[in-house]
Amino acid sequence: MSGQENKQKPDFAKGGGLIPAIAQDADTGEILMMAFMNEEALSKTLTSGEVHYWSRSRQELWHKGGTSGHVQKVKEIRLDCDGDVILVKIDQVGGAACHTGHRSCFHFRWSGQGFELEGEPVFDPEEVYGK
Amino acid sequence: MSGQENKQKPDFAKGGGLIPAIAQDADTGEILMMAFMNEEALSKTLTSGEVHYWSRSRQELWHKGGTSGHVQKVKEIRLDCDGDVILVKIDQVGGAACHTGHRSCFHFRWSGQGFELEGEPVFDPEEVYGK
Repeated sequence: MSGQENKQKPDFAKGGGLIPAIAQDADTGEILMMAFMNEEALSKTLTSGEVHYWSRSRQELWHKGGTSGHVQKVKEIRLDCDGDVILVKIDQVGGAACHTGHRSCFHFRWSGQGFELEGEPVFDPEEVYGK
Repeated sequence: MSGQENKQKPDFAKGGGLIPAIAQDADTGEILMMAFMNEEALSKTLTSGEVHYWSRSRQELWHKGGTSGHVQKVKEIRLDCDGDVILVKIDQVGGAACHTGHRSCFHFRWSGQGFELEGEPVFDPEEVYGK
């Protein structure tokens, strides 16, 4: 295929230093969450084998599960055609990726009337994160 | 669970009118692409049953596959806990979501040395999109 390169690099400049990163369950294919990585977060993810993001609200490097122990173990990392979206396939320790205690952040499903809550939390966030 | 609402609304304001939308194969769970929706794109997606995005490069509503016929048929739409990421589960007509002809945009895999091309295109983009 002409013009198709064999390597791709992450393009942090396009998004002001941040690239969206989709976390997908490595076994089931379920999409668990989406957050952002800066260059340091990607680098730490690659070297440590545990997913690191950049927290936009706290403006700091965020080792997911670093406090609760509910880390995301990296199984595979992919980059898209334009280098501006990352996909991490992971094992989610503790069973839930969402701060609400739900397994996936995507627990609101379009019903025809609106996006309605579906499913139950796996854990009580107050127990895991404290109040 | 206290504080957990039963409905969620898309929050377009947070991202300047745009929300990232992840397209996932409804059958296999494979993540095919990520693009953006504005309010009109989401509305058209919901009413037509075919995925519409907002093209940031062309600054216009983008009916995916509208020209090539390789549309994305909506099977399910989900919203995340914060209302700022959309997940669409789809059937990809024509077999490929990526403009390169690859089935998925995420065809660069981390090898330990870099993100390296994996797999073959499903179609020749020059034939589908013209030169």
